[in-house]
Amino acid sequence: MSAPAITAVRDASHYSTAPARPITIALLGLGRIGSAVARRAREDRASPQPLRVVGALVRDVTMARPGAEEIPRTTDVAELFARRPDVVVEVLGDIEAARTLIRGALERRVPVVTANKALMARHGEELLGLAIRTGTAFRYEASVLAGVPFLGTFSARPLASRVTALSGILNGTTNFVLSQMRDTGAGLVETTLDAQRRGFAEPDPSQDISGNDAAHKLAILAWHFGLGSIAPEAIETIGIDGIDTDDVTAADQFAGVIRPVARIEQSGEGTTAFVGPAFLPRTDRLAQVDGVENALVLETDAGRLFFSGPGAGPIPTATTILDDVIEATRGGQPHAPVNRRGRVPVGPPATSWFLRLTARRLPPGDEIVGFLGSYGIWSHRTLTRGQGIWLLTYPCTRDRVEMALCALSAATPCDGYAIRALVEH
Amino acid sequence: MSAPAITAVRDASHYSTAPARPITIALLGLGRIGSAVARRAREDRASPQPLRVVGALVRDVTMARPGAEEIPRTTDVAELFARRPDVVVEVLGDIEAARTLIRGALERRVPVVTANKALMARHGEELLGLAIRTGTAFRYEASVLAGVPFLGTFSARPLASRVTALSGILNGTTNFVLSQMRDTGAGLVETTLDAQRRGFAEPDPSQDISGNDAAHKLAILAWHFGLGSIAPEAIETIGIDGIDTDDVTAADQFAGVIRPVARIEQSGEGTTAFVGPAFLPRTDRLAQVDGVENALVLETDAGRLFFSGPGAGPIPTATTILDDVIEATRGGQPHAPVNRRGRVPVGPPATSWFLRLTARRLPPGDEIVGFLGSYGIWSHRTLTRGQGIWLLTYPCTRDRVEMALCALSAATPCDGYAIRALVEH
Repeated sequence: MSAPAITAVRDASHYSTAPARPITIALLGLGRIGSAVARRAREDRASPQPLRVVGALVRDVTMARPGAEEIPRTTDVAELFARRPDVVVEVLGDIEAARTLIRGALERRVPVVTANKALMARHGEELLGLAIRTGTAFRYEASVLAGVPFLGTFSARPLASRVTALSGILNGTTNFVLSQMRDTGAGLVETTLDAQRRGFAEPDPSQDISGNDAAHKLAILAWHFGLGSIAPEAIETIGIDGIDTDDVTAADQFAGVIRPVARIEQSGEGTTAFVGPAFLPRTDRLAQVDGVENALVLETDAGRLFFSGPGAGPIPTATTILDDVIEATRGGQPHAPVNRRGRVPVGPPATSWFLRLTARRLPPGDEIVGFLGSYGIWSHRTLTRGQGIWLLTYPCTRDRVEMALCALSAATPCDGYAIRALVEH
Repeated sequence: MSAPAITAVRDASHYSTAPARPITIALLGLGRIGSAVARRAREDRASPQPLRVVGALVRDVTMARPGAEEIPRTTDVAELFARRPDVVVEVLGDIEAARTLIRGALERRVPVVTANKALMARHGEELLGLAIRTGTAFRYEASVLAGVPFLGTFSARPLASRVTALSGILNGTTNFVLSQMRDTGAGLVETTLDAQRRGFAEPDPSQDISGNDAAHKLAILAWHFGLGSIAPEAIETIGIDGIDTDDVTAADQFAGVIRPVARIEQSGEGTTAFVGPAFLPRTDRLAQVDGVENALVLETDAGRLFFSGPGAGPIPTATTILDDVIEATRGGQPHAPVNRRGRVPVGPPATSWFLRLTARRLPPGDEIVGFLGSYGIWSHRTLTRGQGIWLLTYPCTRDRVEMALCALSAATPCDGYAIRALVEH
């Protein structure tokens, strides 16, 4: 880097090291996020260089794009690349078209920024490898905890990024839904519709509710933090649609909450991971993350780090994408995290369980506890309420708990449902 | 950057872009942190390049350095620089010698890493300006929230670093002391001695207890996040030594805690800041940060971001310093945050107050409330306990509250003490 021509140290302008030439951006996609990027770029006052969107690749040039009318649109990617953008921003959201377009840009050595979780979960390492081979900047900060910059930070810091486990609330829609169920007593469907009305949930929230969105993000975190490459499908992924308001109330009686948790852990026995609703004691840091907020806990040998902030939404996502654009134009090495483990097998962990047992006529609580104990499921807290019993168990595998519930439903009129619990003993 | 010679994408080694030549480090200082850096460098397995400490500048070469015996020591800085280290790490901890040595290194274009809060609070912008002029890397990630990387992140991300306010728990010793006073009921002196025994507090904890350490860190954050240059002395800085266990108990009755808080805010009326013990409702994110942990809340137009983790200690600090060393050798621009405001005047804010009034024979509570009201101090909660009354007031300036307490002590036998309260109305 050459020294900028600056004379006085106290001159406030000595911070401005970049020339004022605009940074030109080509958008791949001009939907909700793409339009927000265009708007934020136009209104920005923080960047040392103006940010200018020079065109957008769209499927239909005639479609209305509220707030992004001035952006030249094309269906021809060659025409877009002919504008010689400084950076390509991919906000299409699908996998195959995005992958091909990003490969094309990186092969031409055009820096790329993406927020595409599904793509990065499946092909992130491949694309990063291509970026490193071609010496081209490639950033994906908005793909996890969209409004909180941390991925780029850790990829440049090999000591701090040696994590043994990480857990988080990686999906804002489901965290909002579970928070609202507790606060209002409303059911899952009603609360999800409310989230859609408020603009927190997508028109089709199935990727959120099912846990698939969080599983994609967990897979990205796994390779980014060197815990290994894992297929999102290999992660135990449970939707929040099995949770009802009685579970939320019972969790409260156990001084806990139910949160949409994603966790991966590496130990002597291998790598375990899960995504799904989980009981957490109220004192757990993740239990205190409410509403649409997202959060991440990193367990490192230098201590536990915690980050939280907006996990989605057009403004935080566009802000992060544009900061990525600025970083991408400043050169330096592509992000190069330290996944030296390659593909690793991943299984479900043994955890405590928050069990719900319901029946029209419940057997006495101590009979149920005794029956489950005979299958090796020992509980240390029970609550009977209406036609349900809730238990908090000692750690065991899902196989064992499902087998016990199966036997219980054969021997008694009880229906069981098992929710993971992260409780320290 | 040239493309590394790599052929197979799935080859895990494609992440390793750096050659295996060791990174050589010269330490300025070999005290508690310097020795920890030497030890961590020797034991490191995470860095793609070996980390080698080639020498340390010390005042006394004969002094024992447990755990760092193998490090060549010298009192002659010219001899140390003659070893041509890749990076100089400054861990002296004073101001003037450190400033001169760092200037000398930067003028020779040798990258510098420091963890020196007092230095960076007073001369950080000057040193950063020199680094930018000479095109030399200069990093100070461990100076605030030592174990949590975020300063470098935001300096490269101008959109996200547009904060309007920031608040945090920036000193672990005082947070440990106030947490322990609540948990054990022990007094300030006893708890501080306990912190020293556990190695959390320095042999002389006065910089922590007085709030000066946190004021230094707040001054660094102020210029780093573009809120302006402020002299640490200009920040209202109150020690925690005015807090007694009765205050902690009374705060608990008001569903709150007392935490060592640092806050700066920029509004239409100017910049306000304070450092000192403050009442926080239990639901406040900072209220949930216990023990030696540190935390920071950034208020941005894209939402509230929260970071927490170890704020001090040899292992987290050494980890952060060595990651800074690695980043410093990778080139790129020096950190260039966006303080375009220059030096700004800073005053104390108007906040709510948590007031303690004590007397051998207390006047009736409603008389006190009425008296304070006649001075414009209105309280919305009161608690009488033993020989004390605690009140939680509506927001007003410190001047006004001190004047009212002064008048009260003239008119009645009551002694008053005012603690800031961060409460939303």
